[in-house]
Amino acid sequence: MSEPVKTVTACIVVIGNEILSGRTRDSNIQYLATELGALGVQVRECRVIPDVEATIVATINEVRRKFDYVFTTGGIGPTHDDITADSIAKAFSVGISEHPEAVARMTRHYGDPALFTPARRRMARVPHGGLLVDNPVSVAPGFQMENVFTFAGIPKVAEAMFQSMKHKLVGGTPVLSRTVRTNLPEGIIAEPLGALQKRFEDLDIGSYPAFRNGKPSVSLVLRGTDDARLAAAAVELLATIRGMNGEAEEFAQ
Amino acid sequence: MSEPVKTVTACIVVIGNEILSGRTRDSNIQYLATELGALGVQVRECRVIPDVEATIVATINEVRRKFDYVFTTGGIGPTHDDITADSIAKAFSVGISEHPEAVARMTRHYGDPALFTPARRRMARVPHGGLLVDNPVSVAPGFQMENVFTFAGIPKVAEAMFQSMKHKLVGGTPVLSRTVRTNLPEGIIAEPLGALQKRFEDLDIGSYPAFRNGKPSVSLVLRGTDDARLAAAAVELLATIRGMNGEAEEFAQ
Repeated sequence: MSEPVKTVTACIVVIGNEILSGRTRDSNIQYLATELGALGVQVRECRVIPDVEATIVATINEVRRKFDYVFTTGGIGPTHDDITADSIAKAFSVGISEHPEAVARMTRHYGDPALFTPARRRMARVPHGGLLVDNPVSVAPGFQMENVFTFAGIPKVAEAMFQSMKHKLVGGTPVLSRTVRTNLPEGIIAEPLGALQKRFEDLDIGSYPAFRNGKPSVSLVLRGTDDARLAAAAVELLATIRGMNGEAEEFAQ
Repeated sequence: MSEPVKTVTACIVVIGNEILSGRTRDSNIQYLATELGALGVQVRECRVIPDVEATIVATINEVRRKFDYVFTTGGIGPTHDDITADSIAKAFSVGISEHPEAVARMTRHYGDPALFTPARRRMARVPHGGLLVDNPVSVAPGFQMENVFTFAGIPKVAEAMFQSMKHKLVGGTPVLSRTVRTNLPEGIIAEPLGALQKRFEDLDIGSYPAFRNGKPSVSLVLRGTDDARLAAAAVELLATIRGMNGEAEEFAQ
């Protein structure tokens, strides 16, 4: 008897005009998606939205009801364009003010009171009811409101914040994966691959073509919660490709 | 007399489990956002969604009404998990079948009929009413349904498809930008920067901290449609930072 599969979902909301203008290439989605996957939390959707209060409020209120967890990155710094904390307070219909523990940490960090400027004090403001998320890199904390976790946008800081809070997450059944890479093009393996997917309905089989060292290459990714089933499907897939005179190599992930 | 500012908006929808699992780091958002910006089309939102028909249909129907243009990437290959074309047909409540011109191009490309497999023929299927988007890299076309353009997910192919159709886009007033980079931390420049934003309400001033060569650095990005105003704001900003004994350098973008 195997345990019932428990699915826990998440949405990542990247807040920042710099991603939408193309100035910055986001890396937080990949980092968080990978880390969450390892904890049994499946990222089901991501949004990239501008630093616009109405958009942040509407997006947060939509996704926090649809997904088990929501993670936001960006917009909690000291400048006028950092409006995420205020917008999240509005989404939850609560006020926002300085959090004493955040003020205490930042007072210690800056030492000289002249360096703890009014702008930096803004970073100690947390929506009422929010719990702090530690920031081992630059002290000014993120925060948690119910199932919504708010991190900084700088990848180094976002990653540290995630590491400091991830023990709080309750994941579902971990999704395992195996990858078979081949030199056969998708158009040739598509038919047996589709047949394999039909025989292994409990698995999710994805096909990802790419150019590797200038040559086309296809990664066939098997995902599922039962490793024995994954192993069986991988064995079949390797045999099928080799039976078609293709090269095939398996990578455990 | 300056011309009235015309705003044209876009949404990018990245379709693919491989981005949501963290396996692949998306680069199409940055490419398309940068290219669209140069044409006067402002990306206002991006979504990353799974290869799930109901999600694709609901997302496309939401965003195609909200934005002037929609661009999708991913899910138009030959394998069973490529369901974007069928899902977009469903979103527009139309049928889908082989497009004669797409079949003709692919027949020429593959030469030997044995290579033009049933799986590859799937890539010639286009929702009824759809116009082809050329694919100079691997022939199988993308397509346009009203204001929705559907591209492949492989960056090389998505980029070529965009280049082949971008002359069709009618952009608004181009958004120009100037960047001032400084070694002063955000917490120190936040106050004069906020004051500058208040005096230049027609501009959008963003502050983006980063680590460069291990040292903190802040890029202050001024964006707007009037270059004279941008220049005036940049002059003030440079003077302000230098008046605070900070280093400041301007980059035209």
